[in-house]
Amino acid sequence: MKRGTLKSDIAWATPTKVVVHGLDLCEDIVGKIDFGQMAFLQLFARLPDERELRMFNAMMVILVEHGITPSSLATRMTYCGAPESVQAAVAAGLLGLGSVFVGSLDNAARLLQEALPAGREPGAVDAMGRDIVASYRARKEIIPGVGHPFHKPIDPRAPALFKVAEETGFAGSYVRLMKSIGEQATAQAGKPLPVNVTGAMAAVASEMGIPWKICRGLAVSARAVGLVGHILEEMRQPMADELYLRTEHEASAHLVPGAVS
Amino acid sequence: MKRGTLKSDIAWATPTKVVVHGLDLCEDIVGKIDFGQMAFLQLFARLPDERELRMFNAMMVILVEHGITPSSLATRMTYCGAPESVQAAVAAGLLGLGSVFVGSLDNAARLLQEALPAGREPGAVDAMGRDIVASYRARKEIIPGVGHPFHKPIDPRAPALFKVAEETGFAGSYVRLMKSIGEQATAQAGKPLPVNVTGAMAAVASEMGIPWKICRGLAVSARAVGLVGHILEEMRQPMADELYLRTEHEASAHLVPGAVS
Amino acid sequence: MKRGTLKSDIAWATPTKVVVHGLDLCEDIVGKIDFGQMAFLQLFARLPDERELRMFNAMMVILVEHGITPSSLATRMTYCGAPESVQAAVAAGLLGLGSVFVGSLDNAARLLQEALPAGREPGAVDAMGRDIVASYRARKEIIPGVGHPFHKPIDPRAPALFKVAEETGFAGSYVRLMKSIGEQATAQAGKPLPVNVTGAMAAVASEMGIPWKICRGLAVSARAVGLVGHILEEMRQPMADELYLRTEHEASAHLVPGAVS
Amino acid sequence: MKRGTLKSDIAWATPTKVVVHGLDLCEDIVGKIDFGQMAFLQLFARLPDERELRMFNAMMVILVEHGITPSSLATRMTYCGAPESVQAAVAAGLLGLGSVFVGSLDNAARLLQEALPAGREPGAVDAMGRDIVASYRARKEIIPGVGHPFHKPIDPRAPALFKVAEETGFAGSYVRLMKSIGEQATAQAGKPLPVNVTGAMAAVASEMGIPWKICRGLAVSARAVGLVGHILEEMRQPMADELYLRTEHEASAHLVPGAVS
Repeated sequence: MKRGTLKSDIAWATPTKVVVHGLDLCEDIVGKIDFGQMAFLQLFARLPDERELRMFNAMMVILVEHGITPSSLATRMTYCGAPESVQAAVAAGLLGLGSVFVGSLDNAARLLQEALPAGREPGAVDAMGRDIVASYRARKEIIPGVGHPFHKPIDPRAPALFKVAEETGFAGSYVRLMKSIGEQATAQAGKPLPVNVTGAMAAVASEMGIPWKICRGLAVSARAVGLVGHILEEMRQPMADELYLRTEHEASAHLVPGAVS
Repeated sequence: MKRGTLKSDIAWATPTKVVVHGLDLCEDIVGKIDFGQMAFLQLFARLPDERELRMFNAMMVILVEHGITPSSLATRMTYCGAPESVQAAVAAGLLGLGSVFVGSLDNAARLLQEALPAGREPGAVDAMGRDIVASYRARKEIIPGVGHPFHKPIDPRAPALFKVAEETGFAGSYVRLMKSIGEQATAQAGKPLPVNVTGAMAAVASEMGIPWKICRGLAVSARAVGLVGHILEEMRQPMADELYLRTEHEASAHLVPGAVS
Repeated sequence: MKRGTLKSDIAWATPTKVVVHGLDLCEDIVGKIDFGQMAFLQLFARLPDERELRMFNAMMVILVEHGITPSSLATRMTYCGAPESVQAAVAAGLLGLGSVFVGSLDNAARLLQEALPAGREPGAVDAMGRDIVASYRARKEIIPGVGHPFHKPIDPRAPALFKVAEETGFAGSYVRLMKSIGEQATAQAGKPLPVNVTGAMAAVASEMGIPWKICRGLAVSARAVGLVGHILEEMRQPMADELYLRTEHEASAHLVPGAVS
Repeated sequence: MKRGTLKSDIAWATPTKVVVHGLDLCEDIVGKIDFGQMAFLQLFARLPDERELRMFNAMMVILVEHGITPSSLATRMTYCGAPESVQAAVAAGLLGLGSVFVGSLDNAARLLQEALPAGREPGAVDAMGRDIVASYRARKEIIPGVGHPFHKPIDPRAPALFKVAEETGFAGSYVRLMKSIGEQATAQAGKPLPVNVTGAMAAVASEMGIPWKICRGLAVSARAVGLVGHILEEMRQPMADELYLRTEHEASAHLVPGAVS
């Protein structure tokens, strides 16, 4: 049988040493770098400079928590059945971070990165935004990264992230293109469709050189942190049991003979 | 039907605002606090002071990455079948963080927190350690948090974490008790069983007031960050396909008539 | 490096053939054996006879569905965020099948199989049941497989399963011991604690020679079938969105300034 | 707040009764219907007739098992870290059943169901197949349900399934269209691209009236059954540990100073 290679450049260990992306875990990492730097290191195989770190931290903190969501409810439902498997409760909450909730992050990042491949001169970004919006509208496709069903007229997280991008020097062509898409979407649809949090993250991630295929991973690891907070609260102040019993009662009331719902 | 309440104190949102643990996400969090502070905020519902943050970061970075493990292989195997679901690949890698790999973290934290309930005077920690070890040995149970199959004679991550605990003032009774357990285990077993990384984390987490039932959550969210790095590498330099084909070939060779393995 | 072996006896394939537990998938399985036989084949590496199949089917169908549960809600919450990943929605629903909901199945099977190891003469089963109950009560531990919070005074699924066991010749010592445990629990506690569905399954699985460590797997694969039904209904008649919005509203009402809940 | 309804028609229960799709679990299901009928009941809300059942069973058994795959390895890796969570090990193996391995099932079913909407006369199926293939080729898209990287020149599972379809009266327009697509793909590509197992399943599922969006669910629940077999084997004859240690050694050998791989 032909043999391919199995090769990983991330880490290696001896009995007395662990090395991650070239840094000695015990000498250079523990006590020296923080959680945000470590997350950056995992993605870029190098440590960030100060402005990179500030931008990256802003992206990581923004999706940690959004209260009671389908994701946090899946975690709480799982915890109530398997409290001995905290890892499974976190995993259950991550599994719904798909096309509906964070898919627009990948889609927006892809749109931006395909419109402006690395190394290519940005050219007339405004014209590009107009054409992109027109072509999505012609195909009756949803434009990723703009509009929000709840945060109206504007998702406040987008300007918050763009502000940090300005301050750290990451407000480049991708950010301008994303903003142009939001403006054009608003103009062409005749209703407010400003950049939302995933659009802003997509633009900033693209500025930092993060490939669109892995953007969802940022959201997923941020949310893993958030879900631990929900498990801790569910331990102390549970809601899963009450919620499922109520739901069971209401949802099947029409089936139970003689039941008063 | 009796109605219980559904109540969460973590976050709330209006169309123009998101508030997490009392902090305005867009005003007070994004661009102001970093990923480590955010993770602390989720657990403690308040921001850390400087020494708390340094200790907490040390715990969070230490379990992010340990190279090719069953956990990172489960992630890579899942990614190779469902590259459109990065969230599922991360989740798959978390699911094996159970009794064998991180269970000793909870178990050690439970042991410590039950031996020294919050508010109780520590008393003679050394005698306590001796008795704990003797009682585990009498019951022929594994003592959590000591010894390591690969990192011999000593898991270098434990002293690295304890060093930060000394520097930040978190080397209190739980740390002393854990060290005593390692020393006693070594003495009573007649072979090196020093504190390992999960024992050290358990001690430090106990010092910080983290309930033992949620300790595994720290490891799980740290690992979520690490697994994103493995997915990124698997995208660029895949190994899952080669590895499963090799394994399929070798594992079934004895069944295939006339096959030469 | 020392090399162990990688060996699996389950299946092998050539380009023109797939063989599972010695049966040719295309010649001997498809169109010849049914889903219940196939599940039996996976567990026992042989086909069942008629009475084994009837007993096994009874166990498999009994846990497929129990309406709206934390498990089916986790599936629905996940589907609403990631409708493109049906596999993730099923997985999320399985993850909560832990110590609270199906753990008693493993625990009861373990209790039975350790009390009556294979090959050992059953002896006085009634005395054994009395002693087991007394010893659990002395240790203040929950006796697995008896009592039910909702199905009172008796879980109707237990006698239904035992009836099939009588009819198929599987009502042996394990079934008698489990019944004795239910009777003794009732007598010693002075309140009805009859055998429940997991107790009955544990007894029957033990009769069939299924190791206790894998019993939960039966429940898990049965439930995977059930969860697909919930996804199909969620597609046509969704409830996840409404449920999470209601919950978010109610749970955070006390935090929102000026909100009327 | 506007209130929607929470409604499920699948099951209801009282303390003494459980009813699933109108059948009394204890009276009409346990001991009366088998696992295949139960799975059909969950999907169709009615019991199958004999020929439906035979066809359905053939679909369910065909994807239960295919030996060592990325899916079964993810299960084994997870089990080795969390043997107490059999449900998590099954879930981990399901998570990779995405676009690469079973996605072609949904895609082929969608293609067929959109080409021949329910109730529409099939018309000239051969011409339809030719046009479909031509249009996929013009768009340089992969035609779902044809060709197989390993099972060459023909995936033996496809004719096995089609044979049962002939025998049970399910070889209608969808089956003819799928076969035509395989023939046309072969002709237009100039290399063998016959219908594969997912193409055959897609055709048969379409004949039975199963919506394409839920087709993957069939594969997922079948595989859940198969993965339990892998866990049982991993308990008795483990390979996960050896496999990960080998992989870790080989993959990081180039990083370790002075290591001889």
